Amino acid sequence: MLQSSRVERILDKLKEAGLSQMLIVDPMSIYYLTGVYNQPFERFYGLLLKADGHHVFFLNRLFNVPGEVGIEEVWYDDTDPVTDIVAAYVDHASPLGVDKELKARFLLPLMEKQAASGFVNSSTAVDFTRGVKDAEEQAKMRLASLINDQAMARFKDLIHEGVTEKQVADQMLQIYLDLGADGYSFPPIVSFGANAADPHHEPDDTPVRPGDCVLFDVGCIKDGYCSDMTRTFYYKEVSDHCREIYELVRAANEAAEEKIRPGIPIHVMDDTARGLISEKGYGPCFNHRLGHFIGLSEHEFGDVSAVNENLTEPGMIFSIEPGIYLPGDTGVRVEDLVLVTEEGVERLNNFPKNLQIIG
Amino acid sequence: MLQSSRVERILDKLKEAGLSQMLIVDPMSIYYLTGVYNQPFERFYGLLLKADGHHVFFLNRLFNVPGEVGIEEVWYDDTDPVTDIVAAYVDHASPLGVDKELKARFLLPLMEKQAASGFVNSSTAVDFTRGVKDAEEQAKMRLASLINDQAMARFKDLIHEGVTEKQVADQMLQIYLDLGADGYSFPPIVSFGANAADPHHEPDDTPVRPGDCVLFDVGCIKDGYCSDMTRTFYYKEVSDHCREIYELVRAANEAAEEKIRPGIPIHVMDDTARGLISEKGYGPCFNHRLGHFIGLSEHEFGDVSAVNENLTEPGMIFSIEPGIYLPGDTGVRVEDLVLVTEEGVERLNNFPKNLQIIG
Repeated sequence: MLQSSRVERILDKLKEAGLSQMLIVDPMSIYYLTGVYNQPFERFYGLLLKADGHHVFFLNRLFNVPGEVGIEEVWYDDTDPVTDIVAAYVDHASPLGVDKELKARFLLPLMEKQAASGFVNSSTAVDFTRGVKDAEEQAKMRLASLINDQAMARFKDLIHEGVTEKQVADQMLQIYLDLGADGYSFPPIVSFGANAADPHHEPDDTPVRPGDCVLFDVGCIKDGYCSDMTRTFYYKEVSDHCREIYELVRAANEAAEEKIRPGIPIHVMDDTARGLISEKGYGPCFNHRLGHFIGLSEHEFGDVSAVNENLTEPGMIFSIEPGIYLPGDTGVRVEDLVLVTEEGVERLNNFPKNLQIIG
Repeated sequence: MLQSSRVERILDKLKEAGLSQMLIVDPMSIYYLTGVYNQPFERFYGLLLKADGHHVFFLNRLFNVPGEVGIEEVWYDDTDPVTDIVAAYVDHASPLGVDKELKARFLLPLMEKQAASGFVNSSTAVDFTRGVKDAEEQAKMRLASLINDQAMARFKDLIHEGVTEKQVADQMLQIYLDLGADGYSFPPIVSFGANAADPHHEPDDTPVRPGDCVLFDVGCIKDGYCSDMTRTFYYKEVSDHCREIYELVRAANEAAEEKIRPGIPIHVMDDTARGLISEKGYGPCFNHRLGHFIGLSEHEFGDVSAVNENLTEPGMIFSIEPGIYLPGDTGVRVEDLVLVTEEGVERLNNFPKNLQIIG
């Protein structure tokens, strides 16, 4: 069924932007609004929202719609000229808001056909709506992160003499499933020692060695919603050098989290964490934004970065994940998901952040 | 390293289309041309090819480039205005060919900045190049399909009284890994009985029952290249009705494969298979194209469908996968990958297609 209150929030934002129609193509946004999920691959899949309420759902005959959505469905075949079909439903005399994910293969033909009087990336109308989670979504996000906390406790126990990153990673899915999750929210990152200096390292055949950091950046999906947490442990022992950067990253994480309350510019959190790390001379070694929004997708619109001037609002959920990366040496990242509340902040991850020596 | 001969093939096609520059963003196309793979998610990742040889590779600092590519690399941070950076390298006085995958979030700003004199979907220059596999690629495709043949023999032995689709699917990855594959090319489809009437069914808790069809649509990746094959078996027994549609689909598959030689319109294969199925009154139950191109990606550009007028060329690899789907009843699909050769056709799958009763 169409999620009318969510659609209304989007239409209000479109109206503010002077738009009376928008073509949404992100499958997760369509799921958020209709409860219907399809992975279209190269095929067209779209939801046209109209201010007058005559919404249209464009579907390839290979897609599934399990129940009534309550809006007009337009079904097409692989051999149909799909952009002609879509163009016929767009108001040619008005500008069309388009999803940031709309691909050139569909956007350029719609422009050539002059399907609308202009084409504007109006994704923020959807993204800012999705960015503020309602009570039902918050409950699902809490549960996904609770499972992630429980999983982290088991993951650290997988570390023993000689085990490789890949051997550890290969056991993680079953642990999540045993804990009631539906799967990964993203392929797990397991990094030992110098491998942790690459924030996006893929688990390989590197065995753990005493003194290595052991970084887990992991998340699961539960009831459609994603968790995402990073913890960095040390195997058998920890050098003073590693301890110093660990405590610095942890302090940056905690200082940023303490800043969170409604109505502050999002960059304040990034500034806080980055300021602490830069003060100690590690600024260049923290080479990514502090965090990202998350929900139905593991990375949703919204950077927690130095350039995000938007204000926090109750219901927003994002990650706080400062890191320090020293190529050829080691890496640390400490990450929680947090929910902005009316009063301040609720941390969705409660797995401890004190430095832990394992194995 | 830049794959110069592949780049030259693309530049020749761009020249024919009157273009002197193209922005490629499909990560697999970039891998095909540079040997570098990154999954950019929401970040910009692009390769600008220029007729004058001054190619530019745009990279976020979070991406990895393991070795020398031999062209200019432009690195940007998450806080940099990336479309400004890209626009600065585009020749404003000429039209820009763009990848069909380029998203509105990047395409619309490039248009607003008038980065080029026009914007054209020129993906066929890349797609038709990727569609014709060179000898090295053909060898990798053969190997991936050989593993898939071996895997199919093991998959059918997983079927026993009471086993569910999901229990079977959960064992498949390990079988592929044991056979030397690097992973799935797509999540396996395992469908019993009426579930097979949905061509894209996801394995669920349905147990197998005597008389059920057992459909496996499966593929693995080996050395970057994908396999994809479907076989439909019957558990314990087969009804005359099921046998009839099975033999019809098998005949459609074989008739289409027999047509293949260089220089014929691609729709001929679809016409052949669809004609046979329609003659027996099952036309409406074959609700998808006959096949798709495949290589580095599981679905590459190129439909084997009724509307594809392009001619076959030696080196093309695509699937031939007719099916009949009877909702609430049963489904059949028989799929091979085939390689167009100078002489005719080489079938990459050799797992038998005679009707097999298993269990």
